[in-house]
Amino acid sequence: MSRFMSDKFAALTPYTPGEQPRERKYVKLNTNESPFPPSPIAQRLARQAAGDLQLYSDPTCRDLVAAAAEFYGVETDELLFFNGSDDAIGFAFNAFCDDQTPALFPNITYSFYPVAADFNRVPYETKPLNADFTLNVADYCGAGKTIFLANPNAPTGIALSLSEIEQIVSSNPDNVVVVDEAYVDFGAESAVCLTKQYDNLLVCQTLSKSRSLAGGRLGVAIGNKALIADLNTLKYSTNPYNVNRMTAAAGIGAFCDVEYFEKNCRAIMENRAWAEAELKALGFVMTDSKANFLFAKHPQMGGLDLYNALREQGVLVRHFETELLRDYNRITVGSREEMETLVSALKTILGVAK
Amino acid sequence: MSRFMSDKFAALTPYTPGEQPRERKYVKLNTNESPFPPSPIAQRLARQAAGDLQLYSDPTCRDLVAAAAEFYGVETDELLFFNGSDDAIGFAFNAFCDDQTPALFPNITYSFYPVAADFNRVPYETKPLNADFTLNVADYCGAGKTIFLANPNAPTGIALSLSEIEQIVSSNPDNVVVVDEAYVDFGAESAVCLTKQYDNLLVCQTLSKSRSLAGGRLGVAIGNKALIADLNTLKYSTNPYNVNRMTAAAGIGAFCDVEYFEKNCRAIMENRAWAEAELKALGFVMTDSKANFLFAKHPQMGGLDLYNALREQGVLVRHFETELLRDYNRITVGSREEMETLVSALKTILGVAK
Repeated sequence: MSRFMSDKFAALTPYTPGEQPRERKYVKLNTNESPFPPSPIAQRLARQAAGDLQLYSDPTCRDLVAAAAEFYGVETDELLFFNGSDDAIGFAFNAFCDDQTPALFPNITYSFYPVAADFNRVPYETKPLNADFTLNVADYCGAGKTIFLANPNAPTGIALSLSEIEQIVSSNPDNVVVVDEAYVDFGAESAVCLTKQYDNLLVCQTLSKSRSLAGGRLGVAIGNKALIADLNTLKYSTNPYNVNRMTAAAGIGAFCDVEYFEKNCRAIMENRAWAEAELKALGFVMTDSKANFLFAKHPQMGGLDLYNALREQGVLVRHFETELLRDYNRITVGSREEMETLVSALKTILGVAK
Repeated sequence: MSRFMSDKFAALTPYTPGEQPRERKYVKLNTNESPFPPSPIAQRLARQAAGDLQLYSDPTCRDLVAAAAEFYGVETDELLFFNGSDDAIGFAFNAFCDDQTPALFPNITYSFYPVAADFNRVPYETKPLNADFTLNVADYCGAGKTIFLANPNAPTGIALSLSEIEQIVSSNPDNVVVVDEAYVDFGAESAVCLTKQYDNLLVCQTLSKSRSLAGGRLGVAIGNKALIADLNTLKYSTNPYNVNRMTAAAGIGAFCDVEYFEKNCRAIMENRAWAEAELKALGFVMTDSKANFLFAKHPQMGGLDLYNALREQGVLVRHFETELLRDYNRITVGSREEMETLVSALKTILGVAK
């Protein structure tokens, strides 16, 4: 901290993104990126937009909003786009939490939430997950706080059912429930269909994972139009042109190319099932992941040791060195070839004949 | 405001961006965009990046930072990129202002500043400009507040000299002075050279205007590495991947193609001089603009009337309906052809023979 920085940030600890090493070519299974390039339509539209960058982007993202509204089956004033879904989540912490209304989320979840709460200087509470990393729905029913739930959860991949989400939403009619569906397209149930019925439900999705646009930065919030109007007020008070022209164009292509999107989601789920079976055969213990990653531990090897051994083999996974997570590693589900490389590396590490 | 929105935002009034009408093709001189497309190198690099969007962007923007550091003659830890320079300015309000250290800026300046202060809930004071829109440097010397100065100023285009900026910076050693140089490349002096000497100086620039990347969203803050580290803390607490891959690539091209950049800046300055002379001949009164816009009033016609008449003629300019500005319009300096259309429309409106 410089001598000029406001004391209000004295205790702020920033989020740590997954490493992006340059010194060596790794099989990168550490940041939950898609192994597939963006839809050819998304690429083409983005490239076209690169010629007109002297003009500001449309702050209303009209064409993108229209494409997304059609995809989700909602009205155009029931969704809003952001420079990645972290921006949507950050705005939700800022808009819907304060000293009277703290945030509430599980003790094990996306590690950005406590950072976003601290950055926005809003209080938060956490509820412990069960020992098997499942969430106790009763902890969130009638909680009277602004609830943030990643569904599926990170880094465990465990999903709540739509009826569990509805239980939480309906039992907190005077509080916003934010459901962060970054990984929902890989086998969990989306709560977008509930946004018509519940004015306190805000669903956030990203185009980073299932639509291969991590490097484009595009996230969307879907909810009752009054909630969306609140977020729009914050957007127009910070950065009305928050989505650039190329990304907005790519997003249109990504929402229109439903076939490509569905094919890729299916491939990830198939690769996940294959890798899960292989890892199980090697003795790994895993959660029931509905996301594009596995959360796995091996009874014979500590999480950090495995992380380091895999790194040495050229495979990068994500390790969280905190008490409750340190036995595990989060392993992105990539292409079949990448999963085969992973399994082969694990066999080498564990001394299993190939 | 929904019933869920925190009361802390009850009085927040968002920024109003310039209109982007769709119903008709206008000569768009209302948002200070460049009439020139981005550098061909920037376009090529952006298009290349569109194929790899499944991968996250580099949160450190290493290659972009290296290109910019070389251009500005600073170290790589003395600058930081943002999703447009408004993000940099917003972070500066948040980082360097609080109840003990209010913000200070002129009563007439970029209208985003009061919004950014309100959004970040930091107090601010304004000092009136002189009647001719010049700034009284003494108002800012030893002010003991965090100072925000657009140089050239908006919407007047009037620039402070480097020695005036230095006077303000050197007389406020315990306060950050943010110099917002969005329009500096069209004839004003940049204060980047002072950042080595003064640890309290933060210079913000945008690639929107002189580098034709308004639709790409790319801004940069340059200053002492301790200030940059502060801003980095806030960036990593909100959106580590704030700059997307295509824009980062375009930025590299824009910084490398110095010849194209300089040629376009020269063209804008020539077109400004031409339009200025023409408007003067038509009786307009103007400030001495060093920006890519003119700030002009006509003794025979109110600002709003002129705005509406131009709009009817298919020329869009920016009008601010506030007491001190309502006689004027801000007119972007575009291509020579656009300036000729403007002058021709003004002659029609004023009934002057062509």
